[in-house]
Amino acid sequence: MSRIVMKFGGTSVAGIPEIENAAKKVAAEVARGNQVAVVVSAMAGVTNQLVEYCRSINPEHDAREYDAVVSSGENVTAGLMALALQKIGIPARSWQGWQIPLVTDEVHGKARIGFIEAQELEHALMSGDVGVIAGFQGKTARNRISTLGRGGSDTSAVAVAAALKADRCDIYTDVNGVYTTDPRIVPEARKLDKISYEEMLEMASLGAKVLMSRSVEMAMKMKVPVQVLSTFEDAIGSDHPGTLVTKEDEILEQKAVNGVAFSRNEAKVTILDVPDIPGIAAKVFGPLADANINIDMIVQNIASNGKNTDMTFTVPKPELAKVLDVLGKISDLKNAGIVTDDKVSKVSVVGIGMQSHAGVAQTMFKALAEKGINIQVISTSEIKISVLIDEAYTELAIRALHTAYNLDK
Amino acid sequence: MSRIVMKFGGTSVAGIPEIENAAKKVAAEVARGNQVAVVVSAMAGVTNQLVEYCRSINPEHDAREYDAVVSSGENVTAGLMALALQKIGIPARSWQGWQIPLVTDEVHGKARIGFIEAQELEHALMSGDVGVIAGFQGKTARNRISTLGRGGSDTSAVAVAAALKADRCDIYTDVNGVYTTDPRIVPEARKLDKISYEEMLEMASLGAKVLMSRSVEMAMKMKVPVQVLSTFEDAIGSDHPGTLVTKEDEILEQKAVNGVAFSRNEAKVTILDVPDIPGIAAKVFGPLADANINIDMIVQNIASNGKNTDMTFTVPKPELAKVLDVLGKISDLKNAGIVTDDKVSKVSVVGIGMQSHAGVAQTMFKALAEKGINIQVISTSEIKISVLIDEAYTELAIRALHTAYNLDK
Repeated sequence: MSRIVMKFGGTSVAGIPEIENAAKKVAAEVARGNQVAVVVSAMAGVTNQLVEYCRSINPEHDAREYDAVVSSGENVTAGLMALALQKIGIPARSWQGWQIPLVTDEVHGKARIGFIEAQELEHALMSGDVGVIAGFQGKTARNRISTLGRGGSDTSAVAVAAALKADRCDIYTDVNGVYTTDPRIVPEARKLDKISYEEMLEMASLGAKVLMSRSVEMAMKMKVPVQVLSTFEDAIGSDHPGTLVTKEDEILEQKAVNGVAFSRNEAKVTILDVPDIPGIAAKVFGPLADANINIDMIVQNIASNGKNTDMTFTVPKPELAKVLDVLGKISDLKNAGIVTDDKVSKVSVVGIGMQSHAGVAQTMFKALAEKGINIQVISTSEIKISVLIDEAYTELAIRALHTAYNLDK
Repeated sequence: MSRIVMKFGGTSVAGIPEIENAAKKVAAEVARGNQVAVVVSAMAGVTNQLVEYCRSINPEHDAREYDAVVSSGENVTAGLMALALQKIGIPARSWQGWQIPLVTDEVHGKARIGFIEAQELEHALMSGDVGVIAGFQGKTARNRISTLGRGGSDTSAVAVAAALKADRCDIYTDVNGVYTTDPRIVPEARKLDKISYEEMLEMASLGAKVLMSRSVEMAMKMKVPVQVLSTFEDAIGSDHPGTLVTKEDEILEQKAVNGVAFSRNEAKVTILDVPDIPGIAAKVFGPLADANINIDMIVQNIASNGKNTDMTFTVPKPELAKVLDVLGKISDLKNAGIVTDDKVSKVSVVGIGMQSHAGVAQTMFKALAEKGINIQVISTSEIKISVLIDEAYTELAIRALHTAYNLDK
């Protein structure tokens, strides 16, 4: 007997037939003798409609009221899923965030989970009920409804799995696992049977949009094995129906690189002739942080004239106007020139094995050079090497790297 | 300074423009220096859609899950109304049933309100916030979501008004008050400035569908003055913008009859040759009560042969098949003939003043006789006289009675 959390995202519960299909997957898990909790998203289009209502009525909406409105879509799916399960003979009941309760902080619209009082839910599971949980939502200590931000149902699922000490958290989605890269760009991309939390984190945050980064972070911290698999394929009988995201030491064979990720969402900002004085970086990045802008790659060159320096960094494309606005107000930069480029892509190779393999970076640089692709910025971490390149070369770079690291089928 | 509860039904919050219109009515009440709580229904069509989902997924649905699903429509409106109020500068927050909490019994789908812990809500009102309450819903002692049945938002509003010791509960709807009869049948029908709870109860339960009977019962019990008025007419400046439903002794001028109500929803059942023995009525109506069938008018004739008797009663038309099924199982009736007629209407005259006026019934019988309308069954209460007639004469009877009691403009 295992205890499993199954999470069904928007496309998996798009309408009544999809909810009934998902209920059958739950029934199959129950038939294997497992205790099951189910976490559901809203039906297709519902959350967007609710968000649109809030925007149209009050563009500067109170995040607490926004949360009260947009969380209702998941409540509907949870109740309907419980009904669909009962219909096929599986005892079930729905749980809204406040009923568990799943308690979050007060940052409405993108709240973080504080704790889950799972005793009652656990008791229900042990008595044979399937617990169907409305994802994406919780309540604050002040008894207001909070939401976890877009994609927050993944986080709900992992947090519930941790609170229930579940053996596995299965994330059902419209893809059947995590691939070495986007199969639409590289048809030879392979599905990975296993991937480490750390790699998944780099893949997810780099644009391989299978799992929300926050849910992976939480799974890593809480040591919850997460499986990504397809709602629309029948995986019964397969040992590895999807991709298992788990601890590094459970993955025996380590390649240097397990995946090629990319993001077209970056814009490059270069500040020319920044005064080369102590504390200047803080003066630039402090106001940007205050404005809630995520800075990604940062490169600072040595000043060629011994006094001033050039500083380059990347920001999300939609934030570019805001970035320029913030920079324009920094007095130390009033004589500095600012150059931006939003026709760039970030391409990254990710692999926990690169820590023990030599020459990984060299393979990347060589592969790109052979295709005549110029590298504009480089940044590295222990398990990732990222380069910024001209957007036009994105697909070419991804294919070249996928082959160079022997990831092709 | 008064404390007012304002309730907006489905057509009054049909979409975003209607919610914004209703918010303006609330703002006007706040501008008069009043403390305001608002109770809202779901947006047009939302509850029907949710009910349809439940039915299609599981026709024998668990009422607890049904409640969890269908209550979500009101949550959306409550949040949006709070946002609409904030947008025009009125501090507001939404309250779902569990947040107040409004605690009901466990009869899911048509729960009754047990108590309302209104301290926190009252505190919010006193600090200047408008409290926007999701109608139609509460929670049970087991922390499950309950709904009050169709039209339950009226009951929510009255219960909240009682708990807040509000000076008035204003029910905003798509008509501008309670009329002496249906103006679509009698163009001369007049809007009543005031009506007693008792009369309203008779009018509502007889098919003048302005207010749910349960909300009027509660208002009477809790002594909450209720005003029915239109969302779509500007009544500011008028002393009596709608119809005030209040205590009998606050209505000075008493006419014998204040309204003509009717119902086309009745079917007549006659049991021929019922054995005239003690306890036979209990044997007939006991099983019908057990089957949750509301019996209305009951007439029993003296047995013409000294042994057997005829018994006539009315039931709601949609229940007729069920009634025959129940009667067929009663052993004492196995030799009795059963005759039914669903082409009947019930027409009633209602007036608290008939207690002190003589000849009220005679006026009714005479008016109907003059039009050649045959009376099939008569039943009376202290403030109401009802007759069952051939359905085809419904409008004719209503017009004749409206004139006979001097109700025309």
